[in-house]
Amino acid sequence: MRPSSRKLDQMRSVSIETGVMKHAEGSCLIKIGETHVLCSASIEDKAPSFLKNTGQGWITAEYGMLPRATNSRNRREAAMGKQTGRTQEIQRLIGRALRAGVDRRALGERQIVIDCDVLQADGGTRCAAITGGWVALRLAMNKLIKAGIVSSDPIVDHIVAVSCGIYAGQPVLDLDYAEDSNAGTDGNFILTGAPKLIEVQLSAEGASFSRAEMDQLMDLAEAGCSELVAAQKAATE
Amino acid sequence: MRPSSRKLDQMRSVSIETGVMKHAEGSCLIKIGETHVLCSASIEDKAPSFLKNTGQGWITAEYGMLPRATNSRNRREAAMGKQTGRTQEIQRLIGRALRAGVDRRALGERQIVIDCDVLQADGGTRCAAITGGWVALRLAMNKLIKAGIVSSDPIVDHIVAVSCGIYAGQPVLDLDYAEDSNAGTDGNFILTGAPKLIEVQLSAEGASFSRAEMDQLMDLAEAGCSELVAAQKAATE
Amino acid sequence: MRPSSRKLDQMRSVSIETGVMKHAEGSCLIKIGETHVLCSASIEDKAPSFLKNTGQGWITAEYGMLPRATNSRNRREAAMGKQTGRTQEIQRLIGRALRAGVDRRALGERQIVIDCDVLQADGGTRCAAITGGWVALRLAMNKLIKAGIVSSDPIVDHIVAVSCGIYAGQPVLDLDYAEDSNAGTDGNFILTGAPKLIEVQLSAEGASFSRAEMDQLMDLAEAGCSELVAAQKAATE
Amino acid sequence: MRPSSRKLDQMRSVSIETGVMKHAEGSCLIKIGETHVLCSASIEDKAPSFLKNTGQGWITAEYGMLPRATNSRNRREAAMGKQTGRTQEIQRLIGRALRAGVDRRALGERQIVIDCDVLQADGGTRCAAITGGWVALRLAMNKLIKAGIVSSDPIVDHIVAVSCGIYAGQPVLDLDYAEDSNAGTDGNFILTGAPKLIEVQLSAEGASFSRAEMDQLMDLAEAGCSELVAAQKAATE
Amino acid sequence: MRPSSRKLDQMRSVSIETGVMKHAEGSCLIKIGETHVLCSASIEDKAPSFLKNTGQGWITAEYGMLPRATNSRNRREAAMGKQTGRTQEIQRLIGRALRAGVDRRALGERQIVIDCDVLQADGGTRCAAITGGWVALRLAMNKLIKAGIVSSDPIVDHIVAVSCGIYAGQPVLDLDYAEDSNAGTDGNFILTGAPKLIEVQLSAEGASFSRAEMDQLMDLAEAGCSELVAAQKAATE
Amino acid sequence: MRPSSRKLDQMRSVSIETGVMKHAEGSCLIKIGETHVLCSASIEDKAPSFLKNTGQGWITAEYGMLPRATNSRNRREAAMGKQTGRTQEIQRLIGRALRAGVDRRALGERQIVIDCDVLQADGGTRCAAITGGWVALRLAMNKLIKAGIVSSDPIVDHIVAVSCGIYAGQPVLDLDYAEDSNAGTDGNFILTGAPKLIEVQLSAEGASFSRAEMDQLMDLAEAGCSELVAAQKAATE
Repeated sequence: MRPSSRKLDQMRSVSIETGVMKHAEGSCLIKIGETHVLCSASIEDKAPSFLKNTGQGWITAEYGMLPRATNSRNRREAAMGKQTGRTQEIQRLIGRALRAGVDRRALGERQIVIDCDVLQADGGTRCAAITGGWVALRLAMNKLIKAGIVSSDPIVDHIVAVSCGIYAGQPVLDLDYAEDSNAGTDGNFILTGAPKLIEVQLSAEGASFSRAEMDQLMDLAEAGCSELVAAQKAATE
Repeated sequence: MRPSSRKLDQMRSVSIETGVMKHAEGSCLIKIGETHVLCSASIEDKAPSFLKNTGQGWITAEYGMLPRATNSRNRREAAMGKQTGRTQEIQRLIGRALRAGVDRRALGERQIVIDCDVLQADGGTRCAAITGGWVALRLAMNKLIKAGIVSSDPIVDHIVAVSCGIYAGQPVLDLDYAEDSNAGTDGNFILTGAPKLIEVQLSAEGASFSRAEMDQLMDLAEAGCSELVAAQKAATE
Repeated sequence: MRPSSRKLDQMRSVSIETGVMKHAEGSCLIKIGETHVLCSASIEDKAPSFLKNTGQGWITAEYGMLPRATNSRNRREAAMGKQTGRTQEIQRLIGRALRAGVDRRALGERQIVIDCDVLQADGGTRCAAITGGWVALRLAMNKLIKAGIVSSDPIVDHIVAVSCGIYAGQPVLDLDYAEDSNAGTDGNFILTGAPKLIEVQLSAEGASFSRAEMDQLMDLAEAGCSELVAAQKAATE
Repeated sequence: MRPSSRKLDQMRSVSIETGVMKHAEGSCLIKIGETHVLCSASIEDKAPSFLKNTGQGWITAEYGMLPRATNSRNRREAAMGKQTGRTQEIQRLIGRALRAGVDRRALGERQIVIDCDVLQADGGTRCAAITGGWVALRLAMNKLIKAGIVSSDPIVDHIVAVSCGIYAGQPVLDLDYAEDSNAGTDGNFILTGAPKLIEVQLSAEGASFSRAEMDQLMDLAEAGCSELVAAQKAATE
Repeated sequence: MRPSSRKLDQMRSVSIETGVMKHAEGSCLIKIGETHVLCSASIEDKAPSFLKNTGQGWITAEYGMLPRATNSRNRREAAMGKQTGRTQEIQRLIGRALRAGVDRRALGERQIVIDCDVLQADGGTRCAAITGGWVALRLAMNKLIKAGIVSSDPIVDHIVAVSCGIYAGQPVLDLDYAEDSNAGTDGNFILTGAPKLIEVQLSAEGASFSRAEMDQLMDLAEAGCSELVAAQKAATE
Repeated sequence: MRPSSRKLDQMRSVSIETGVMKHAEGSCLIKIGETHVLCSASIEDKAPSFLKNTGQGWITAEYGMLPRATNSRNRREAAMGKQTGRTQEIQRLIGRALRAGVDRRALGERQIVIDCDVLQADGGTRCAAITGGWVALRLAMNKLIKAGIVSSDPIVDHIVAVSCGIYAGQPVLDLDYAEDSNAGTDGNFILTGAPKLIEVQLSAEGASFSRAEMDQLMDLAEAGCSELVAAQKAATE
C-alpha cells in the first residue's frame, strides 16, 4: 500500500557515517533512505552574550538545503538574501531539541553550533537532521571530555526524531516524500533514549484527526525512535 | 498556586469585540485576560499564483506585535528590516490553522488575509490570534455570502486554540506570561468545534514529559476550547 | 461644502484615553475623528552613544500603520523588509517635534522612545501621532519625576500638531482623508502651547499657493492647536 | 557677523555649467558657493504603472552624496544596503518640487528621472539639487520638443529653492554649513518663477519661532529665489 | 619542500564520482585532494529574459560553501542575508568559464544552472568547481541530446581550471590551502581541451612578479589542465 | 580600424586634476578619454580590527558609478539595497592593487579609504580608478609625511592599470566602450612603475586565445602603463 512497499510500521534503512568533515569537531552523513543530511558540530569558546557569567553553555543549529536537493530546483537562500520561514522554523526546532538532551551547566560557557545541510531530500529532513545532529554533537563532546575541557559528560540522553502520519487513511511510520505530500495528517516526534517525549508536532492538512489516531501515531513513533537510538549507539560507541 | 490564583483548569476571562476597524471586511479585538490582539480580514480578488485555474482560494495570515506590547520594549521588526523566526513561525501556524476550517473550493479563487496585531501581550498571543482571526474571517465570509459572491458557506467549522503546560509540576490551562516563562513543558492545541484536532505542538524546555502528562494536557485543552467556541458563537451569531 | 459637513474652521472630535498599555511608562489612544493612533512612551536608561558624557538625553519616535488601517490593505513593512520613505519621514518629524518641547539636560542621559501605531487612518495620522505622543511622553516624565529620577520637569511646553489645507479653493482646518486626497495645497503645523511655531510644512500638489493663503492657513492652525492643547491638559492634569 | 562675511541677505556665488554628462538627455553641474551638485535628466519611454492609460507622465528624483563630499567621510549608502531616511526625504522633496512645475499631461506617458549627486557639500545641498535638477529637466524637455515627441512645452514655470534661517538671532539668506549647523531655526523655500510658493519647510532646532520671524525669512527667500531664476535663465536660454 | 611533499609540478589526486544527486539532470562529487565540491546541473525550460527571441540559451552558476567546510567555521551566507563579494566573484567566474565551452545557439532558449557547493575546502575550490561543474553540464547535455531536445551537441570543448603560484620562491602547480595562504603570487588558469586559454587571473599578494615567472606558471597550468581533461573524459565517456 | 581612429598601440588622452574635493586628504579627477573618475583618499585613525596590535595599516577601496554615467541609465545601487557583484569585484581589485604598492608597516595602524566614483563611463573605469586612486593615495601620504605622522614614505612604487584586448582580430591598447563591448578577449593589467606585474586578468568572451596573443597584449600593456606612470608623476611631483 505504501509507495515504497514498506510495512505500515517499517522505517527506511538508516545509515550513519561519522568523521566525514575533516575540519569539524564532530560530523556525520546520515542517510534515512534517500534523505541525506550532512551534520557537523563546531565548538566555540564563547557562549552567547545572554549567558555571560551564568556558567552555562548553549547549543544552536543552522539548517540549509542545497538548491538541487529536491526534485525541482529551489532558489538558493543566500542568493535570495534571506532564510525562508520554513528554514528558520526547522533550525529553531533542531536547536531546541538538542538542548533538551544536554546539561548546559556541565558544558560551561561555550557554544556548539550544529550545521545540518541537506544534500538530497526525500521527506523527513528535519528528523534526520536532529538524529544526525545529535551524533555530531556527541562526537564533539567526546573531544571536549578527552581534552579535559569538560569534566563530566554534558550529554544527558540520546535525542532522536521521526515523522509519522496518516497516509491513505492508515497511520504509517517514517514518511517519505511521496507519502508526506499526500498525508492528511503528519507530525514529528522527538524523543529521548529513555524514552520520554521532548517535542510533538502534529498537524492536519485538509483533514482533522482524533485522539485515537494521535495515540496510534505515538505508538509508531516510539518504535521508530528506538531503532534510531540503536543506530546512534552503533555509530558513536 | 497559580500566580493569577486561577484554578488549574480555569481560563482567563475572554472578550471578543467585533467591527472595531471600519475599513476591514471583518475585524475584532480579542482579549484573553491581559492579552489583547486586534484581528482583521481583508478580501482580495485574486488567489496566489500557485492556485491559478484551480478554482480554489487561500487564507493567509500575518502577525505582528507592537514594540511596547511587552514588559520591556522589543525592536520594531519594520525597523530591523526583517521578521524574526518566531514571527514567521507564528504566522505560518495561524494561516495553516484557519485554512483547516475552510472549504477553499467554496471560497473560489480569492484570498483572505488575516492580520493579527498584538496590542498587549501576557502569554498565549498566537492562540488568541487564531481564535480572534477566525472571528474576523467568519465576518468577512458573511459579507461574501450576503453579497452573493459565494453561494455556499466556505466555513466548515470553528477553529480555536489554547495553550496548556506543566507549571510547578501541575498541568494547567491557558498559561499567562508568568506561567509560560516558567513552564517545564508547554504547548498549543488547535481544535475545531466538533471537537477534532487540527494541530498539537508540545515542547519541553529543560524537562521531558510522559504520555500520561500529554493526555492530561489534551483533556484541559478540550475543555478550554469548548469555552472559546462559545465565545466565538456569541460574537458572531 | 466639506464632505463631513464640518465648518471651514471646525476640527473633528478629539478624544484622548490614557493608560491603555499596561507595560508602557506612558500611553494613550488618541482619536481625531476616525483617525486612531496608539502612542506609548518607553524609558531607556541609556542615551544614544553620540550623547555620551554630555549630560543630555534624547527623545526618538517610531511610527507604524497596521496593514488594514486604511481603505485598501497596505503591505506590512516588516514583511517587505523595510520602512517606506514616508514612514521614515514621519517618524523623524515626530521625534524632532517632541524634542523641541523638552529640556534634554533636565532629562539627563536617558532616552525615551515614543511609538505611534496607527490602528485606523482617516487623514492627519502624523499630527495625531505628535499630539498623542506628547501625552505619552508627559505621563512617562511624570513617572520619572515621581520616582525622583529627574529633579526638575524636563517638559518645557505642550507640543501639538494639526493639518490645514486648501480644499475646493477654501482654506480648511484638520483635513480628513476625503479632503486630504483632493487638496491642492496642504500642510502640517506644529506649535507649542505658548503658542509659538516649531515646524511648518506646506506643500502644493499640482497648484502653487500665495503668501496670503499661507497666512490664512496659519490662522486656522493656531485656532486648532489651542483646542488640542486643551485636550492634552484634560487628559494629563 | 556671518562666518563667510556675507551680508544677511547675500547669497553665495551661483554657477551653472550645462552639458557636463555626455550620455544624459540633460545635465548640469551647479555650484552654490562650495556646494557642488551634478544633476542629470534621463528620459524613459514608460510612465510608472500607476499612470497607465491616464495620458500623464511622471518626474521622479534620486539623490546621493559621495562619501567624501563632507568634512568627515560618510558611509556609502550602497555599501550599507539602504538609503538613509534623510536621503529618502530629500529625494521625495526634489521630485515633488519639480513635478509642481510640469504639466504632466503635456509630457505624455513617459518618465523623466532626475539624478542629483552631491560631489562636495557645504550646506543647502537639497536646494541646489532642486535648482540644478530643474535645469537638467529643462534641457531634456528641449530635446523632446525638438524631436517632436511632445508638441507643447510641458514646463509651466521655473522651480528654484533656497534655504533661510535664524543664525545668531538674525534672519539670513542661503545658509552655508557653518551657519546651518548652528541655526536655531532653518528652512527651505521652494518657489516658482512667478513667484508663487510650492513648498515651505521651516523647523526649529531647540528654539521656537514667531510668525514675524517666519515673514522675514519669506522675504529673504523671495529675493534669493529671483536670483536663482535669473541663473537658470542664463544657463538655458 | 611543499607541505604535502608533492613535487613542484605534481597535482593532488583527482577523483570525480558522477550521478550522486538523484534529482539533478547531471551531478558529480569532485575531489581534488582534500577539496570536495558537489556539483549539479539543473535544466530550466526558459532562458533569461535578455535572451528572449534570440534563439540562444544561457549557462549560469551559483557557488556556496558549507559553514564548516573550512578550518574555522564561517558564517552561513543565508543567515547573514547576503553573499559575500568573494562568493559573487567566484560564481561569476564559473558561469563565464563554462559558457566559453558551449555553443549557446545549439542549446536553444533554455538555461542550465550549475550549483557548486563546497563540502570540504583545502584550497582551489573555484578551480574544482569549474572542472566538476563542466562534468555536471556534460551529463545534463547528454540528457537533452538523448531526449532529442537538442539536435547537435552544444558542448564545444572541455573546460578545466587549475591554480598555480609562487610558493617559497618556486613556481608550483595546484596549490593546497597551506600553500595558497603563503604564496606571494597565485592565480587561476582556465583552459579548454584544445588547449587554448579562456581566462587567466594572476595576482600578487605583497610581492610583484615578472613576465618570466608568469611564463613558468603558464607551463605548469597547461600540464595540470591536461590531467584534468583526462579525468573528465574518464568520468563522462 | 578602431572606432576612435586611434592606432593599435595608442592610448586615449590622459588628464589628472588634483585637489578637486576640498574635504578629502587627497583627491583627483582622472580623465582617460571620455571616462571620468573622481577619486578621494580619506585617512582614518584606526586600522581594521584584524590588524590590531600588528603595527600595520590598511588600504581599502570603494567603487561606484553615477546612474547616468552610462548610455542608458543604471539603477542606483543605494536604491536597490545592494552593490552588484560587478561593483564588489571591482572595489576588491582596486584595494588589492593599491595595497601592493604600499609598505603597510611604514603606514602604521591606520586605514586609508579610496573612493572611486565614475562620473562618466566610456570603458576602462576600473583601470582609471586604480591609476587615479593611486594619485589620491599619494597626496594623502604626503600629508601624513608633512605632518610628521609617518616618518618614512609608505609608498613603495607607482601602481597603474590599463586594459588591452583583441578587437576585430587585432591586439589593441586601452579599449573604449565601443571596443570593449565587441572584444573577443580583453583584460586588465596592473603594473608597478618598475615595471613589474601586480595583477593580470584576461578573459575570453566567446572565443579562446593563445599564449602568443597573451604576449602581445602584455607588450601593449607595458607601453601604456609607462605613459600612465608619467602622468601620475606630472600630477603629484
